[in-house]
Amino acid sequence: MKSTWQIGLRKLLNVKYPIIQGAMLGVTTPQMVAAVTNSGGLGTLPIGGLAVETSRELIKKVKSLTDKPFAVNLFVHEIPKDYNVDDIEKMQEFIVNLSKKNDINIEKQAVDSLKLYTYHDQVNMLLEEGIKIVSFTFGILNDESIRKLKKNNVVLIGTSTCVEEATQLEAKGIDIITAQGIEAGGHRGTFLSANKPPQVGTLALVTQVLEHVNVPVLAAGGIMDGKAVAAALMLGASGAQMGSAFLCCDESGATSGYQKAVLMSKDTDTVLTRCFSGRWARGINNKFIEEVEASGLFVPEYPFQNSFTAQMRSIASKQDNKDFLSLWAGQAASKAQSKSASEIVETTVKQVQEVFDKI
Amino acid sequence: MKSTWQIGLRKLLNVKYPIIQGAMLGVTTPQMVAAVTNSGGLGTLPIGGLAVETSRELIKKVKSLTDKPFAVNLFVHEIPKDYNVDDIEKMQEFIVNLSKKNDINIEKQAVDSLKLYTYHDQVNMLLEEGIKIVSFTFGILNDESIRKLKKNNVVLIGTSTCVEEATQLEAKGIDIITAQGIEAGGHRGTFLSANKPPQVGTLALVTQVLEHVNVPVLAAGGIMDGKAVAAALMLGASGAQMGSAFLCCDESGATSGYQKAVLMSKDTDTVLTRCFSGRWARGINNKFIEEVEASGLFVPEYPFQNSFTAQMRSIASKQDNKDFLSLWAGQAASKAQSKSASEIVETTVKQVQEVFDKI
Repeated sequence: MKSTWQIGLRKLLNVKYPIIQGAMLGVTTPQMVAAVTNSGGLGTLPIGGLAVETSRELIKKVKSLTDKPFAVNLFVHEIPKDYNVDDIEKMQEFIVNLSKKNDINIEKQAVDSLKLYTYHDQVNMLLEEGIKIVSFTFGILNDESIRKLKKNNVVLIGTSTCVEEATQLEAKGIDIITAQGIEAGGHRGTFLSANKPPQVGTLALVTQVLEHVNVPVLAAGGIMDGKAVAAALMLGASGAQMGSAFLCCDESGATSGYQKAVLMSKDTDTVLTRCFSGRWARGINNKFIEEVEASGLFVPEYPFQNSFTAQMRSIASKQDNKDFLSLWAGQAASKAQSKSASEIVETTVKQVQEVFDKI
Repeated sequence: MKSTWQIGLRKLLNVKYPIIQGAMLGVTTPQMVAAVTNSGGLGTLPIGGLAVETSRELIKKVKSLTDKPFAVNLFVHEIPKDYNVDDIEKMQEFIVNLSKKNDINIEKQAVDSLKLYTYHDQVNMLLEEGIKIVSFTFGILNDESIRKLKKNNVVLIGTSTCVEEATQLEAKGIDIITAQGIEAGGHRGTFLSANKPPQVGTLALVTQVLEHVNVPVLAAGGIMDGKAVAAALMLGASGAQMGSAFLCCDESGATSGYQKAVLMSKDTDTVLTRCFSGRWARGINNKFIEEVEASGLFVPEYPFQNSFTAQMRSIASKQDNKDFLSLWAGQAASKAQSKSASEIVETTVKQVQEVFDKI
């Protein structure tokens, strides 16, 4: 890539290449974050909903593997105060019974006993650890957090799934905005209409977000190789976020069954579902999604449903049982590569250069 | 654009620029087709479902305005033989009553009295008129039509909305494949699962179709300017199809209310609906869509529903009443430009060159 490209973003993030590894909770390991960062991209460590000390340990692990700045990704959510106890009871019972029928032995948990964390618990720790880049999704950090982080020169990256979310992020002083198109795997970042998320494709979204904001925009969703990164740069994006591209890398935390499902997936195999976490997310369709949908039961809001399925997912992960795992993946996930994260960054950069050279 | 770009496609279609104007029945006029073609792009005349002589007149009109080859677009559908008379009765009654309540006076039509045409009626006429490029959507032309058209050196362009459709088109010897992403306005070209169309974004779709076919691929859906055309070329597409980009051009057949709605639309304003035609299509949400959906009635298949709403749409068009018109538009339609079609082609080409020059 010629040096004239995306200088602004590269200065802001102190990266060599405008390639951001998307946060994938449960899949992204500290090793992945460090490998991407050391290769000249920006690694992102997901800590959304995790306890402070767990988060700190993960951060320390990344730090032990790289001297360069990396991003830490937060979930911007609150714990819902109102919930229907009956709905929750029914769903818990359903999950426990379905799991047991499938050799996943879990027990019901009292809602009061759930350990639930939000970003409010995490912000001070990020400052203590000297984190320089914080990205977030599901909403906008509150004013106090923004003030505190910016005062410490932390670069903030927000997530939008429609133009209106992007303009609201910019109005709050967020430095960089990710435009997450409908192709993207994992959770939708939607916050203005979380129950009915926008379905705007990456190409249409990036085109329009760029018309409405003046800060650098990162394209996300369906970007699996250097050709797509080049396409994003052509649209005017300052960089590209790649998530699914790293799903099957050597440093991935995805089980081998999950990785196999990704590599075998077709363009039409993913669905948007609230079944695993209570928030809309894109993943490969599987038995758990189908059973919850067939049940007709109300899926409790995040983070409740996420907690209710946590034990099931954890055991399914150990059993490598892809029927009861959240197989988050984007619409072009089959193009994920089984090599090291640093090789993926290098191959991508080389391919961007190749397509640029052809012009 | 440098001459090295997309030579194959340009030779095949005899165009200067790899920019295809998408067929928009009811919006695309012969003047639009000729203007795009004369400017070095490829204009496309939609004749899907029209009577042979009507189609022939439109073709003759285009021919009177340009000497260059242009494309003619067909709907590949059959007339369903089985239908539920009760469903049809109820829907017709609903449309008539709703229309009357809104000052659109229409009468019920007997199903037997409907004049319905398919591409089988049109193929010979295309050969008689010496049409050199035929594009199609909703399916694959039957073997006889393909044989007949190819024997006469007609270039065939098929439409896919997922990888599987693209590979089936290629297997039938189709010369060029349009990959229509979920961003696209108007009818989905889906034919393998027409009732539950794939929702693959343009970026993810083009990326994957290119991995699976060897013929030239055109990117469609959300492409509104030269930056997006450049992005499509970066992905490896041989060209880009732009529909909504021409919605508000001087030669557009869209009413002024329709055009205004397009220009004012937000990225999240369009929906996929079967309400107007019986086939899934993307347009700006309006009163008719909401009323049909609220009714809970079954929407009869294409072309029945299309015929039942035809009178209503025709009168609404004359009244410029956007509540009862199909406001087909893509997810980035607000970027449509109110200038001549030739200026849109020229601006787009200039912008492709500009972004290429920046590399």
